[in-house]
Amino acid sequence: MLDFLNQRRTIRKYSNEPIPNQLMTELLQAAAQSSNTGNMQAYSVVVTSNVDIKNQLAPAHFNQPMVKAAPAVLTFCADFNRFSQWCQLRNASPGYDNFQSFMASAIDALIFAQTFAVAAESQGLGICYLGTTTYNAGEIIDALQLPKLVVPVTTITVGYPDETPKLTDRLPLEAVVHYEMYHDYSPKDIDNLYAEKENSDFYKNFVAENNKETLAQVFTDVRYSRKNNEFFSDRFINVLQQQGFM
Amino acid sequence: MLDFLNQRRTIRKYSNEPIPNQLMTELLQAAAQSSNTGNMQAYSVVVTSNVDIKNQLAPAHFNQPMVKAAPAVLTFCADFNRFSQWCQLRNASPGYDNFQSFMASAIDALIFAQTFAVAAESQGLGICYLGTTTYNAGEIIDALQLPKLVVPVTTITVGYPDETPKLTDRLPLEAVVHYEMYHDYSPKDIDNLYAEKENSDFYKNFVAENNKETLAQVFTDVRYSRKNNEFFSDRFINVLQQQGFM
Repeated sequence: MLDFLNQRRTIRKYSNEPIPNQLMTELLQAAAQSSNTGNMQAYSVVVTSNVDIKNQLAPAHFNQPMVKAAPAVLTFCADFNRFSQWCQLRNASPGYDNFQSFMASAIDALIFAQTFAVAAESQGLGICYLGTTTYNAGEIIDALQLPKLVVPVTTITVGYPDETPKLTDRLPLEAVVHYEMYHDYSPKDIDNLYAEKENSDFYKNFVAENNKETLAQVFTDVRYSRKNNEFFSDRFINVLQQQGFM
Repeated sequence: MLDFLNQRRTIRKYSNEPIPNQLMTELLQAAAQSSNTGNMQAYSVVVTSNVDIKNQLAPAHFNQPMVKAAPAVLTFCADFNRFSQWCQLRNASPGYDNFQSFMASAIDALIFAQTFAVAAESQGLGICYLGTTTYNAGEIIDALQLPKLVVPVTTITVGYPDETPKLTDRLPLEAVVHYEMYHDYSPKDIDNLYAEKENSDFYKNFVAENNKETLAQVFTDVRYSRKNNEFFSDRFINVLQQQGFM
């Protein structure tokens, strides 16, 4: 199992082979047994295979080709709608239209999503997470007709792999693990932790292709800029307000 | 693998057997290979075994006994501190002190956490998630000395199981899965989806023990009340501001 987790790769190209309905059901069932807050299961997933609806979702994901090409697009949502409706029908007054409830349900949705991802990969499928989900949540809400107290937090495209990409590099484990309490980094620590990445031919080419001086500049100036992060922050906060979570 | 995921149970009682350091490293390494945003790995985990520090963490988790009793307490954090420091040392101007960056790093932390959970369970360990992490994030920040741009989003206690609890019930899969787009629930749908849960002896006793009329009231009046949710919403938003994410 650990070997399998260590060898996984994100898959962005899928064959035409469809995912059997029975398999999809089994994967979702296995994922639903993972942990959740107070067994409220305050999440939902929308499984989209219909071409027209995938076409509506695509612009929200900046037309990344996986959305139209994957046999299934799974949109995982923080969802206090179902639970709140149940409360109202049972003479109970739900109080889940607030930020703490959003956090709890977003956590539930992400634990469910990642268990689904591991389950799918264990059965020979390939997956790709789409971080664009929180950028353009409003457009996804429109495309999938998500009601109040439902907010998409991540998306996974799924299909049988039609590529075998290289294993993606990771920072040394010391970069992300702290023992007992947090130990902040010295400049020398940072140099050591990023040395292998910065010295690799792959990233040297990546910096050159982007016409930047350092790899960090590719992130700050091109991929995840302050301007974009602030723009999408405002948009996502507006979505939380519109959906009743703030 | 699917059978294994379907049979998992949350474990709250642990034997005295310690977790070998080598195994902990292998589990964290396997978890680090899971997906993350732009390969920034904007997360960190604090692995706490020291009795004094676990004692400091315990009140933040409302003294749930797992915190002191588990051989290891893992606090998973949204973390743009390390990445931002790297940017500053590389002539790049980081722009990650905003809500969108918090969401991206919280998603990374949760995907990492759940892969760790599955990996740990696959090696015979038992885990329990602590939802109290976002309630009392400020106290956890103090206990673990988390710097700016680091916010705890979930905690997992880990150890070898000293109990074999029953499998926890879940709603029928139709409750959480929507095909193509979201289909909102009719009152009849809600009745059907919650019937098995509401008719079980376990939950009937649970309602009686709590002196409530309905199961939903146990949630709204006792376990997750509006008053508490709103109180903890304000606290968590303050923590996001204090740590520089809002």
